[in-house]
Amino acid sequence: MRQLDSAQLTRVPTFADVLEAAARLRGHAVLTPLLESPALNAKIGGRLLIKAEVLQRTGAFKFRGAYNSLSRLDLKARKRGIVACSSGNHAQGVAAAAQILGIPAVIVMPADAPAIKIANTRSYGAEIELYDRYRDNREAIAERIAAERGAVLDRTFEDPDVVAGQGTAGLELADQAHACGAALDAVLIPCGGGGLISGCAIALAEKCPDAAVYAVEPEGFDDTRRSLAAGKRLRNDPEARSICDALLLPTPGALPFKINSALLAGALVVSDAEAGRAMAAAFRHLKIVVEPGGAVALAAVLSGKYDCRGKTVAVICSGGNVDPDTFCRVLQQASSKEI
Amino acid sequence: MRQLDSAQLTRVPTFADVLEAAARLRGHAVLTPLLESPALNAKIGGRLLIKAEVLQRTGAFKFRGAYNSLSRLDLKARKRGIVACSSGNHAQGVAAAAQILGIPAVIVMPADAPAIKIANTRSYGAEIELYDRYRDNREAIAERIAAERGAVLDRTFEDPDVVAGQGTAGLELADQAHACGAALDAVLIPCGGGGLISGCAIALAEKCPDAAVYAVEPEGFDDTRRSLAAGKRLRNDPEARSICDALLLPTPGALPFKINSALLAGALVVSDAEAGRAMAAAFRHLKIVVEPGGAVALAAVLSGKYDCRGKTVAVICSGGNVDPDTFCRVLQQASSKEI
Repeated sequence: MRQLDSAQLTRVPTFADVLEAAARLRGHAVLTPLLESPALNAKIGGRLLIKAEVLQRTGAFKFRGAYNSLSRLDLKARKRGIVACSSGNHAQGVAAAAQILGIPAVIVMPADAPAIKIANTRSYGAEIELYDRYRDNREAIAERIAAERGAVLDRTFEDPDVVAGQGTAGLELADQAHACGAALDAVLIPCGGGGLISGCAIALAEKCPDAAVYAVEPEGFDDTRRSLAAGKRLRNDPEARSICDALLLPTPGALPFKINSALLAGALVVSDAEAGRAMAAAFRHLKIVVEPGGAVALAAVLSGKYDCRGKTVAVICSGGNVDPDTFCRVLQQASSKEI
Repeated sequence: MRQLDSAQLTRVPTFADVLEAAARLRGHAVLTPLLESPALNAKIGGRLLIKAEVLQRTGAFKFRGAYNSLSRLDLKARKRGIVACSSGNHAQGVAAAAQILGIPAVIVMPADAPAIKIANTRSYGAEIELYDRYRDNREAIAERIAAERGAVLDRTFEDPDVVAGQGTAGLELADQAHACGAALDAVLIPCGGGGLISGCAIALAEKCPDAAVYAVEPEGFDDTRRSLAAGKRLRNDPEARSICDALLLPTPGALPFKINSALLAGALVVSDAEAGRAMAAAFRHLKIVVEPGGAVALAAVLSGKYDCRGKTVAVICSGGNVDPDTFCRVLQQASSKEI
């Protein structure tokens, strides 16, 4: 049904790449559980399975792609070190993977990233370089540092090894759903640059070909939704703001967009308030800590933006790196609403 | 080394009972993950494995024992229904298990139990009867209701089937530790009435005979610690108070105490502030929601009450049913301290 024309594309990762990544990650990444709550099932009138990637090493799926990519560097490249850009979760993934592999890492992070993400990245031994999210060009900063040091420039979701690594989350999800007797009608996945969902879409096209895969984005950052409709990559309004800090990129990644154009059923958009109520529901019913951007797919289901009645649906809760103050503010705002 | 003299005791559950309970629970209880955090390992100078029972159905381990016990009732008894006493987590476990098995349930709960526990218990279809934790005799209330309705009286941790069911958490923990190459020096487990730790101690004595098993209790409710030292069951000061609502029982259970006297290495005590800092560490490093009573074993490790340097230690985070207001107050109090 869904098809990816590999012949037209350069170095698009395949299902075999995802399987190889899974083998490389074994014993390093956490096989995160697929959770289920009778209360949430009752609320949506269907069956909801939640892939708890917040329990992944570094608190988000990003470790998967970072470790898969860095572990493929040769010894000479490892010595030169790596320079990466990230709003925080990829930063921690790269820093943790680099630490395990003995690779020096510099991470270029926005100055307004959650303090917990900056502190955690530093705790994995990485050097931090801060920039202004709305004014500076982070790629230019990273390129300058990489040139100065002769280091390898991390390409995040433009790196097929990163995309294949993220896809292992989808591979696990498919196997776990199968093991609990669930035939998935749909899988909803948070989408920023698109690395996670594109990797997962490759795995799901092979393992659950009948499941519709949807990207979920925050309001004001629906670049993937609009780009899919237009058939080309569009940019977000630079004035847009959202609490979903992990998903605030100006435009879809080129490699993910190629994959997503071929494999996604569509994209959905949720408000910050809907993301917050999903965080509160995860706190209450699932006992997991989910950050705003990590909660958007769950939000699409709980808000009814995606109608689950009579369906079996999986979502990925992709990260849990949120400051206590933000978490509590969101919980208090959401507690007045029914969750 | 540690031995349990079954001949002297009546109906003490055995390792075989725990294995049978595990078979009964398969497909009903969640096989909760054993988590690990490099940051927490570095902090304690050892290896720490965390059994995340907060991810269990109903948000606490209690579903294990309740389902194991209720599933053994015959059809006639099932029709008559069940009456149980609980501060909240056992309530939810009994209510959820009863709902699955089609058994009417009345739960006698303290009026000051967290609102989330009362609401969740009700959501599983149980009838709720409230009492005053410090004035009323909950057993008398339950006995009256059971007599009036001809219902079965739940015996919580005095029921060998409940203890064997809780022991499946220890059985899983032992298998999971083995699978990740960990030879456990010690296992620390929260202790209220003692049902969880006594069941787990039976499993661990068989699966990890070299691991020392410690109960952890909140200050003012160290009845098991003092009772183990005295060789008989002692009571707590009725004036004592703690935020660890799940562990506030007047005295150790008779059956658990028999088992614990034979199998435990000892008991440790933590303050409310230490439990709170453990909740904050679980939020930050593990991305799980842990309630105060569920965090005491983690608190014993992180506070240094149990010295983990050079050791491999497992703890159970036994429950996560905490109101948002309490959770946020604890997080804010703990955030000023290093976690």
